[in-house]
Amino acid sequence: MASLQCKTMALAIALALLLQVCFFTKVQSYSTLSSAEKVTQLPGQPQVSFQQFAGYVTVDQKKQRALFYYFVEAEVDPASKPLVLWLNGGPGCSSLGVGAFSENGPFRPSGNVLVRNEYSWNREANVLYLESPIGVGFSYSTDSSTYEGVNDKITARDNMVFLQKWFLKFPQYRNRSLYITGESYAGHYIPQLAEIMLQFNKKGNLFNLKGIALGNPVLEFATDFNSRAEYFWSHGLISDTTYKLFTSACNYSRYVSEYYRDAISPLCFRVMNLVTLETSKYVDKYDVTLDVCISSVLAQSKILSPKQVTETVDVCVEDETVNYLNRRDVQKALHARLVGVNRWLVCSNVLDYELLDLEIPIIPVVGRIIKAGIPVLVYSGDQDSVIPLTGSRTLVHRLAEELRLRTSTPYRVWFSGMQVGGWTQVYGNILSFATVRGASHEAPFSQPERSLVLFKAFLEGRPLPESF
Amino acid sequence: MASLQCKTMALAIALALLLQVCFFTKVQSYSTLSSAEKVTQLPGQPQVSFQQFAGYVTVDQKKQRALFYYFVEAEVDPASKPLVLWLNGGPGCSSLGVGAFSENGPFRPSGNVLVRNEYSWNREANVLYLESPIGVGFSYSTDSSTYEGVNDKITARDNMVFLQKWFLKFPQYRNRSLYITGESYAGHYIPQLAEIMLQFNKKGNLFNLKGIALGNPVLEFATDFNSRAEYFWSHGLISDTTYKLFTSACNYSRYVSEYYRDAISPLCFRVMNLVTLETSKYVDKYDVTLDVCISSVLAQSKILSPKQVTETVDVCVEDETVNYLNRRDVQKALHARLVGVNRWLVCSNVLDYELLDLEIPIIPVVGRIIKAGIPVLVYSGDQDSVIPLTGSRTLVHRLAEELRLRTSTPYRVWFSGMQVGGWTQVYGNILSFATVRGASHEAPFSQPERSLVLFKAFLEGRPLPESF
Repeated sequence: MASLQCKTMALAIALALLLQVCFFTKVQSYSTLSSAEKVTQLPGQPQVSFQQFAGYVTVDQKKQRALFYYFVEAEVDPASKPLVLWLNGGPGCSSLGVGAFSENGPFRPSGNVLVRNEYSWNREANVLYLESPIGVGFSYSTDSSTYEGVNDKITARDNMVFLQKWFLKFPQYRNRSLYITGESYAGHYIPQLAEIMLQFNKKGNLFNLKGIALGNPVLEFATDFNSRAEYFWSHGLISDTTYKLFTSACNYSRYVSEYYRDAISPLCFRVMNLVTLETSKYVDKYDVTLDVCISSVLAQSKILSPKQVTETVDVCVEDETVNYLNRRDVQKALHARLVGVNRWLVCSNVLDYELLDLEIPIIPVVGRIIKAGIPVLVYSGDQDSVIPLTGSRTLVHRLAEELRLRTSTPYRVWFSGMQVGGWTQVYGNILSFATVRGASHEAPFSQPERSLVLFKAFLEGRPLPESF
Repeated sequence: MASLQCKTMALAIALALLLQVCFFTKVQSYSTLSSAEKVTQLPGQPQVSFQQFAGYVTVDQKKQRALFYYFVEAEVDPASKPLVLWLNGGPGCSSLGVGAFSENGPFRPSGNVLVRNEYSWNREANVLYLESPIGVGFSYSTDSSTYEGVNDKITARDNMVFLQKWFLKFPQYRNRSLYITGESYAGHYIPQLAEIMLQFNKKGNLFNLKGIALGNPVLEFATDFNSRAEYFWSHGLISDTTYKLFTSACNYSRYVSEYYRDAISPLCFRVMNLVTLETSKYVDKYDVTLDVCISSVLAQSKILSPKQVTETVDVCVEDETVNYLNRRDVQKALHARLVGVNRWLVCSNVLDYELLDLEIPIIPVVGRIIKAGIPVLVYSGDQDSVIPLTGSRTLVHRLAEELRLRTSTPYRVWFSGMQVGGWTQVYGNILSFATVRGASHEAPFSQPERSLVLFKAFLEGRPLPESF
């Protein structure tokens, strides 16, 4: 009964939204459009001088597919700053919960309040967090069958349509320098999105794309995943014996291929059991040196989550985010609705993504983007064993060779404050690799200061600081 | 003039010491002997309930060679606790300055005061820190020519003589369970000392040796040193290209061999230059993820030093220790003297150690110790690139195979508190390997809590905690 009421209400809300979008589409008063989605104040939020917006963009009116966004303007002089689209991976995890509220957004939830992140990326840019694809977080379809078989192509197209329509709400950002950043499976989303944007631009020059940055990205399935064995071994997570098995008998890419085809061989089953046993569920594979949030581990959370400690970082921030974003007053302040689901989740449990898309090689796409003159940065939090730095570095190096790009900045450290922020290498002044020292899979979460330095250099098209 | 006065004074002190030792050697009132060396109160020290002693043991009266020790009894019930000898490496670095005051001793210097280390190893044992060999720290010879050509054999013999004579001062410890622990180049000192102790025991059963523990030890020159290339590469410190050169053109063991023979080939020179450039002086090779003490780096310190940060750890602790131990009131409280040198140093600049001893394979010695029934633990702080965990693990694994010891505890995590303390594997219940997660070359410095858990399990002969 309660469920039915819920659905009815969701339908009513969706209808209202549809009418709203239909009504406003042709209206020229764009500022009215965006001002309706202004976030006046998030519950528990400290006072800030910049503007925030949140709401929906319907990408498919027939099927009522709507994407939720959260947009934070730059702290100072937003008109002079670029626009940055941020995408988390998964596939199926939220840019709002992970990116905005745990990584590089202006606030982090802590109990009932929000605390300021002094290394928020909106110090350098206007940042647009998009919950993508449909079915993630507050993004929804009223027809739940559309959650099935969502794939890279659909995601890229929806994200492009989203941006096109979002520019109707925020016309002042139309010709602004645009960067796309994100991490993990966004290594698939971003290059594919960038490529169809470039294709679109041939017809009508809409997207002023200036660069893409990919953090710990999935770029080439076998290299990325198989570098995990080496990483585990060299960081002490598996024994010599298991390392041998994991590189000869059954490697990780084979296991994943078998897994997604529902055909795990007895051999791979045994090897993965051994690996899983040795690496232990009490070690965060997304950050191997630092601590885990015990409550999350015990809950067997499968969510792509930042779990690590320093004195300023809350390893249980994921739990905090889930609690915060499920508050009705917070959802109201964000103009967000739960449609067809009871709770906001960090990673979707309704989305049925085409996981075999994982095997699409993205490196050629990245190559084409570079050939089109768009700078690409691949960066890697060096404590991540899921998409290890070694695989990413090898892939970038190999791509540079293929494109015949010479090293323009040799492998060297870069600085953040008076400490080494990581290592970097640049090829042909257009393709860059950088590690973030001491950083997790979600680099801006665990190393916010270093990540901000990296982000700033990326936007400015400058080499990372060579000294201090 | 001042220098001459200094030397005269040093001679007078040495003479006084000689007389003291001669006088007391035959005296049966041992408690009087040790009570003379009781440390009543170290300057700036908080109140504690345990006793401390410090002073000299002359190991060679003819040449006036005296070793300095600092002994802290167990916090609670010292009579029931074992005796542990701690040795730092180098060769030439101080167990007082590094071991006692930065790693596992009861206090750490902070400005003008000493603060308690709540994970001090004297919670579990009576710990004896020895400044060895002669020429290190407060240990001295009045004949400076004896600092030349000091080698592993001399060190082992001196350390054994030291212990024999120390038992005269502390007869209550004569039959106590004895463990020897230490790190780095102590991977050479300890097994060789243990072996001559076992030989000595055949004549007169003096040393009740129950086990040895070696932290990030030099055990087999080529394996240990060459694992550095892999570690650098997998942790992001060198590029793919340099990794190739560093494993094919000139590896680290070859470079070191050439270096110590004063015959560096142009090829190795080029490769090492590249490695040095990429790894950067601003990254602490003894702990690659955490920060460096900028003042030490800028001073081009060559000292084997703990440099890393967590909220409770002072990355500049080495500077603090040097300042503290050079205070006259501190030296007086410790019954220590500077003989032939102007300052106490973390690592000796008067000792001229036979560095080719580095190439002596120690693994066979460890094998013989195990065959004699003495448990051996090799542990490894996993953030150390100097003697990486991968080399140590391979060596232990190989030794187990040679000795035909079967795995008694398979490779698995162990716990400290509610977090993973590291990984462990045990062979034949006598040979153990363990990593300490997030720990530097000096594991008890950077991970004091985890190291204490490891130490306790080692003393108790129990497996490391399997759960929490």
